[in-house]
Amino acid sequence: MALPVSHETAFDPLSDSCLTINAPLVAGWLVSFLQDEVIRRRGIRKAVLGLSGGVDSAVVAYLCARAFGPENVHVFRMPYKISSQESLDHAQLVVDDLGIQDRTIEITGMVDGYISAEQEISPARLGNVCARSRMIVIFDQSAKLNALPIGTGNKSERLFGYYTWHADDSPPINPLGDLFKTQVWQLARELGVPRAIVDKPASADLIKGQTDEGDFGITYLKADRILHYLIQGYSKTKLMELGFEQADVELVCRKVDGTHWKRRMPTVAMLSSTAIGEYYLRPVDY
Amino acid sequence: MALPVSHETAFDPLSDSCLTINAPLVAGWLVSFLQDEVIRRRGIRKAVLGLSGGVDSAVVAYLCARAFGPENVHVFRMPYKISSQESLDHAQLVVDDLGIQDRTIEITGMVDGYISAEQEISPARLGNVCARSRMIVIFDQSAKLNALPIGTGNKSERLFGYYTWHADDSPPINPLGDLFKTQVWQLARELGVPRAIVDKPASADLIKGQTDEGDFGITYLKADRILHYLIQGYSKTKLMELGFEQADVELVCRKVDGTHWKRRMPTVAMLSSTAIGEYYLRPVDY
Repeated sequence: MALPVSHETAFDPLSDSCLTINAPLVAGWLVSFLQDEVIRRRGIRKAVLGLSGGVDSAVVAYLCARAFGPENVHVFRMPYKISSQESLDHAQLVVDDLGIQDRTIEITGMVDGYISAEQEISPARLGNVCARSRMIVIFDQSAKLNALPIGTGNKSERLFGYYTWHADDSPPINPLGDLFKTQVWQLARELGVPRAIVDKPASADLIKGQTDEGDFGITYLKADRILHYLIQGYSKTKLMELGFEQADVELVCRKVDGTHWKRRMPTVAMLSSTAIGEYYLRPVDY
Repeated sequence: MALPVSHETAFDPLSDSCLTINAPLVAGWLVSFLQDEVIRRRGIRKAVLGLSGGVDSAVVAYLCARAFGPENVHVFRMPYKISSQESLDHAQLVVDDLGIQDRTIEITGMVDGYISAEQEISPARLGNVCARSRMIVIFDQSAKLNALPIGTGNKSERLFGYYTWHADDSPPINPLGDLFKTQVWQLARELGVPRAIVDKPASADLIKGQTDEGDFGITYLKADRILHYLIQGYSKTKLMELGFEQADVELVCRKVDGTHWKRRMPTVAMLSSTAIGEYYLRPVDY
């Protein structure tokens, strides 16, 4: 994508247009992507995913139902004892609308089976233990069903590092990872995701009343606009010249810069000329 | 490393020499690697790792004790109800010899808190649930202690895909990942790891009497020799011309070819010119 230098007079970085997607085109391409990666390349016909009640996993459920047929989509609600009833109800809306296969597996036994031996545990640690417990359920159920786990992480949260490592980022296929949150909302409307899910504030549902935007200190709309330009190579100075507020720019840069480690494979001590993933690279991953 | 074409008369692929390491040199360099990656680059002074009673985690404990001092090395024994007493005893030998910090956290509550809702579970599924539960403990304890998880996977098992995805391969730093199992044994002797640990058959300790080599259908010594040449680019035909048995070569190739997906990041649908990890690459990961 070329930098918009040649038409600066018409260029308004604070408008939404830089984030607008052709939602029908994107929906169609992502259905093809899922069929190609799961069925054609891996020979698997079924998908599993966790259905949180939020918009990201709802969108993936709609895409999977189109790609694999509702009878081949297995979704799991995995509440912890403090999860909200609203989340479970919103997940039910998706299940009922699509006619997909659903099961509820409580993670309370797993989580409390561990944390009961700890004197105290912070909300952040508890949230990570819950997210990783859900990963265990999803991967184990995928083994049982001979199905592939499908990821639901979007580009905004991936760039902010706003997810649990080796949990939300673990499924081998992710259709949403290159869409900002505001673009996921556009796609959700295109796919017919229930309005109650699209219109509510995004939340990890780990603490009552918690919202993503409250955690961040910035709205997704502001953050996505800044991210859009930042990762094309715009400097902080240039972003401020374009009209973004300094505090917002610095907040976004800090989150991206502080979380590069989460988007990389482990660092392995190299001792040979055939270190895996370094000299020993394969053109394909399957 | 050049192919040994020019001295074919002296070339014996069935000898151990291709796997021989300069153990004192490797030990020294890995201690520097750990200090560099953990202390200098990440500003963290403490390490956590799971101590299984096997040789890989024992070697890493010895390296970490040298790199960070025994007071900064926190090891965890994480038995499931069917884990062997011998494994716990062997881990104790390491703890006593090094004077490192140890704690035992049973994973039985976590694991059974999940599998009690399943009608039946295969040994493979149970093994993966156990390995991932241990990952949860290690990452949570690292958050509590402000310490970094250190990986223990060796090159042989990484190439065979003989580990649980998002479990054994999850720690951000791994000093052993470019050493074949037979090279880890050499390093263990150099570091003074107790003979009871170095000399016993390698086992994942998931089923009574299980050994790695029994699972593979080939010894580590044979497998490592074949892997050594295979990933330098030798063809199956060339390997057999060199004297390796066809059945062994095919077994090793099958395991490597079937597990490339485990050594890659998830596949994300690309929708922009700034897809994370594709166009949007960073020169460093911290």
